[in-house]
Amino acid sequence: MATDDLDTRTRELDRAHVFHSWSAQALIDPFPIAGGSGTTVWDHAGTRLLDFSSQLVNVNIGHQHPAVVDAITAQAELLTTIAPSTANLARGEAAKRIVDLAPDGFSKVFFTNGGADANENAIRMARLHTGRDKVLSRYRSYHGNTGAAIAATGDWRRIPNEYARGHVHFFGPYLYRSEFWATTPEEECERALHHLRRVIEAEGPATIAAILLESIPGTAGIMVPPPGYLAGVRRLADEYGILLILDEVMSGFGRTGRWFAFEGHDVVPDLITFAKGVNSGYVPIGGVIISDAIAATFDERVFPGGLTYSGHPLAAASIVGALDAMQDEGIVENARRIGEDVLGPGLRALAERHPVIGEVRGEGVFWALELVADPVTREPVAPAVIGALKKDLMARGLLPFAADNRIHVVPPCVVTDDEVRRALDIYDAAFAAL
Amino acid sequence: MATDDLDTRTRELDRAHVFHSWSAQALIDPFPIAGGSGTTVWDHAGTRLLDFSSQLVNVNIGHQHPAVVDAITAQAELLTTIAPSTANLARGEAAKRIVDLAPDGFSKVFFTNGGADANENAIRMARLHTGRDKVLSRYRSYHGNTGAAIAATGDWRRIPNEYARGHVHFFGPYLYRSEFWATTPEEECERALHHLRRVIEAEGPATIAAILLESIPGTAGIMVPPPGYLAGVRRLADEYGILLILDEVMSGFGRTGRWFAFEGHDVVPDLITFAKGVNSGYVPIGGVIISDAIAATFDERVFPGGLTYSGHPLAAASIVGALDAMQDEGIVENARRIGEDVLGPGLRALAERHPVIGEVRGEGVFWALELVADPVTREPVAPAVIGALKKDLMARGLLPFAADNRIHVVPPCVVTDDEVRRALDIYDAAFAAL
Ligand SMILES: Cc1ncc(COP(=O)(O)O)c(C=O)c1O
Ligand SMILES: Cc1ncc(COP(=O)(O)O)c(C=O)c1O
Repeated sequence: MATDDLDTRTRELDRAHVFHSWSAQALIDPFPIAGGSGTTVWDHAGTRLLDFSSQLVNVNIGHQHPAVVDAITAQAELLTTIAPSTANLARGEAAKRIVDLAPDGFSKVFFTNGGADANENAIRMARLHTGRDKVLSRYRSYHGNTGAAIAATGDWRRIPNEYARGHVHFFGPYLYRSEFWATTPEEECERALHHLRRVIEAEGPATIAAILLESIPGTAGIMVPPPGYLAGVRRLADEYGILLILDEVMSGFGRTGRWFAFEGHDVVPDLITFAKGVNSGYVPIGGVIISDAIAATFDERVFPGGLTYSGHPLAAASIVGALDAMQDEGIVENARRIGEDVLGPGLRALAERHPVIGEVRGEGVFWALELVADPVTREPVAPAVIGALKKDLMARGLLPFAADNRIHVVPPCVVTDDEVRRALDIYDAAFAAL
Repeated sequence: MATDDLDTRTRELDRAHVFHSWSAQALIDPFPIAGGSGTTVWDHAGTRLLDFSSQLVNVNIGHQHPAVVDAITAQAELLTTIAPSTANLARGEAAKRIVDLAPDGFSKVFFTNGGADANENAIRMARLHTGRDKVLSRYRSYHGNTGAAIAATGDWRRIPNEYARGHVHFFGPYLYRSEFWATTPEEECERALHHLRRVIEAEGPATIAAILLESIPGTAGIMVPPPGYLAGVRRLADEYGILLILDEVMSGFGRTGRWFAFEGHDVVPDLITFAKGVNSGYVPIGGVIISDAIAATFDERVFPGGLTYSGHPLAAASIVGALDAMQDEGIVENARRIGEDVLGPGLRALAERHPVIGEVRGEGVFWALELVADPVTREPVAPAVIGALKKDLMARGLLPFAADNRIHVVPPCVVTDDEVRRALDIYDAAFAAL
């Protein structure tokens, strides 16, 4: 088939047979993607786009990194799948790679298929370890689409799916739209901690199994917590015997220029959930990194959770390939350097030229541009503005990530200085054209 | 490393770093599996086992089928992962293969990562389509480990995980241990339908979104429903405007000697969930096959569900490879023939020789041996008996599947007559040694 026909066939099959996530099916027109390399993807006809979305902020190592592709093909020849009840070398090697990156006191990994079931199982562990029921999580958060994960979620996606009990939500720090009438990061931090303490007291500390937080809330707006907030949450949790689960599904494995986003926040959680960046999503996998105290709870007592593909060898091999390459090639360091030296300064310069950019937030390759209709009232731009901007960015050769009134600037960690400069020019032109 | 050392390293890494499903971590000693082919798996040292478990009853096409491995490596070279919001050829081709096998009136597939999230999303669709809340499912069932899926589950695994509301359980047909004092299949069917009607009436029909059933309950004991039962459930559902979700995660894609287990039961569901056999689990994937009426509900209205790896290209390519090979090589027909001519008769002959086998049930390559301490009272054998039997079967070179007091005889659909005869000899010797 000619390449144009392949795009047509892709679109036709998609429209006829593929039901899409979070969409009204008749109102979408998905762009066909045939291949990719590094920070670039293309359709069959050869239209190339600079991927500043990392898809769903998962392709940290870039598209089609040869080391990960090779790890997959090698394991595919050996053994693709095996039951969780067996032992497997690729699975063990992947688990070791992960715990080696985690803080001291974490030796075990429970593997799942993605981020949602990672959070499901972390919640399960927390409830059984504490013997308590409730899970506290923040508004403006996303933890996945399954029963407990979606009930823990703090955005609109929870509302039609609220069929699980025991979930309570609180407000987190977000100075640009403070819920606490705060005017400085210190004040926002202090008041957010006061608010959390009041929620804990009002719910009854002895009923609360865990506080579940994205280390840096991602889809909700890449809100880097103010200094001291996560450490303050840790202190509150300890005071009341509550566990702290940090969701590193989007923020983990290089995105922030660190292996875990919580590093540097003077906090060690009890459970860490991950997916996405651990293998850049080349094969579906996620999991929970378990602190030794919680793991010990299930030494003699059955852990009542599981799934057919827990510790899938093909996925495990891709973790080994990805983490080794990220280490060998300094990919996390690249993300940090790019964020500090090129992308961060570049985005702040954009904001000075375009008043529609109300705030620039982020670090590493994890940035949000908050777009406002009015810089004083901070009223979000209308959805139509974001729609038009997305279209224009794609026409200019950049695949963007948009959420609510924001553009998230989230390229792979391997992005080069030159690619960042090209992207900044594209954003600049698109904002100018608004 | 020498091969024995690799087994040792595999065990060491596993014990140190891998947290296992449904287990007390200190009480297990997982067997290392290094590779496989067809119906055989082996460790690094070369110990070979005849796989009569298909792992978790998922490797329908056998281990390392070259057509599926080739499909994976080819797609790995092209494009492993892409966001659900795009269109992709492998994804579209996989969806088309699946709807082509489904009954008329099913055109769309929503892809998930496995069976649990397939059921989560089917439940979500049913609730939103009907505007009702409750989901009815049977005791003696398993639907997955995430929030709603585990609350829908009818076995012990639900009990410590019951944090979702809106789930109600009823008893299904199981003549060998009838809940309805029935003595014939006809009576069991009629009384089970009467019981279901009473539960619907007592719950209030207008509160019930869906009845969720495994077409043939799998892990719970491979209980082929009596003739007329599924059609009777369909009629009840229609009478009350309730949707019927059939869970074909374990029973689908060849296991019964048919593409779907519900074929031949004179029933068409509203939603079909699948995983496992669709690609034999070579890459994690599952999904929901959606009837046109339900799909239309989400044409103009946003479907509030999704996941990062929905329609993952690598997994999709493995579906195309697996389904094409199953069709080209008559693999489903082989499962049916083996069941009718070799495996079924062989297991029934075993039961005549060994009174510990209280009942033989199944079809295709989907069989259960119910082991009883007393053939009259039908008291299940003690867990220790099953433990000893498992060990002995492995020592004799067969990898078994055990659940409660049962041995499930569930080889890949590609199993040969000769392999079945070897396995029957092994089971025979192990039962003789009990
Ligand atoms: C922070 C966070 N947690 C959990 C999830 C859910 O992951 P998945 O889509 O793999 O279920 C996401 C997905 O975007 C996420 O960003
Ligand atoms: C009938 C049935 N439904 C759902 C599931 C859950 O599938 P998964 O383990 O892929 O989540 C299983 C798993 O054994 C199953 O047998």
